[in-house]
Amino acid sequence: MDRLAQQIKFIIEIDRLKGILRQNLLADGSRRENSAEHSWHLAMMAVVLAEYAPAGVDLLAAAKMLLLHDLVEIDAGDTFCYDAQGNADKGRREQEAAVRLFRSLPESQGMELKALWEEFEAGQTSTAFFAVALDRLQPFLLNAANGGEIWQQNRITRDRVLERLRPIATALPTLWPWVQQAIEDNFKGAIAPQIRDLKESKS
Amino acid sequence: MDRLAQQIKFIIEIDRLKGILRQNLLADGSRRENSAEHSWHLAMMAVVLAEYAPAGVDLLAAAKMLLLHDLVEIDAGDTFCYDAQGNADKGRREQEAAVRLFRSLPESQGMELKALWEEFEAGQTSTAFFAVALDRLQPFLLNAANGGEIWQQNRITRDRVLERLRPIATALPTLWPWVQQAIEDNFKGAIAPQIRDLKESKS
Repeated sequence: MDRLAQQIKFIIEIDRLKGILRQNLLADGSRRENSAEHSWHLAMMAVVLAEYAPAGVDLLAAAKMLLLHDLVEIDAGDTFCYDAQGNADKGRREQEAAVRLFRSLPESQGMELKALWEEFEAGQTSTAFFAVALDRLQPFLLNAANGGEIWQQNRITRDRVLERLRPIATALPTLWPWVQQAIEDNFKGAIAPQIRDLKESKS
Repeated sequence: MDRLAQQIKFIIEIDRLKGILRQNLLADGSRRENSAEHSWHLAMMAVVLAEYAPAGVDLLAAAKMLLLHDLVEIDAGDTFCYDAQGNADKGRREQEAAVRLFRSLPESQGMELKALWEEFEAGQTSTAFFAVALDRLQPFLLNAANGGEIWQQNRITRDRVLERLRPIATALPTLWPWVQQAIEDNFKGAIAPQIRDLKESKS
């Protein structure tokens, strides 16, 4: 198959990410979010919050990373971050998915994109720090906006959320006081007063 | 409201793009696509097809442009590209939406993002050429993959699709012969043999 045909085939195949449902609901609580729209939201967040990124972050690399970080779910499915059993073999399932998926592209391109995925998973570079922190922040914002229904259903405690959001303290230190306060506000009661007020107030 | 609070509010507000339904179906025909996952798909296409971009394209600017180009639909809704009546006042409705939406961000940032949206709409720079061409190609690929149901329902002819895809001839000349062939193949019969075969063949 020629180069362009491989790329077009890949573009059509990744459409399946729109059918992978995540655990969290949208901000309005109307339905579960899918991984494609989640990835869009993260890339938009990278654009909007770029000024808080750690030194040395390559914004284009971060955007690519966020756009593709969940593609492996096309084969491996979404694993709820608080599901210990599902997370036990998540690494193996996703590694196999990455090999299959990125191998379907022209070789050098597939290797480049797979390397970005691995950089995100390893979380050791400034760019990956930034990307991982956004990936933690986004579902928190949605859960908070819809009143924390998923936290309540799954009996997720404040401490587990705090632990989950901890990478933000290092990667986006300017945001950390805001995040800590938002956690306090959300886990005081059953609903998410601060962020709901943000939504309702007119700018 | 302080800078960060404005940005967080914006991030939560744009979640609504996930609820804006487009006319086209997903590649598997299972449901209509929403504008957030469409925007994700376009940004992924910019990454995968970057090598065919015209000279002078800024890939980061193109990615930002594609991520945000449909945000105005949060207020203005999606307008079917073949709907003459809807397109008559689309410009005004979207301009009002852009003013409101981008004004909710810190001023310089809102102006930067609004300028990117205007650059996309004007379609005069290399980066905008590239972005517009991808925005035309993506629904074509999905419609072709699902057998062209939307084309049939709306009695969209080969000539109208050819006209709609014409920006690809200038912006992505390497792809144009492939696109022309795909149009021929799709409008020969009721289904989309070429792209369906691409999907089914194993790499």
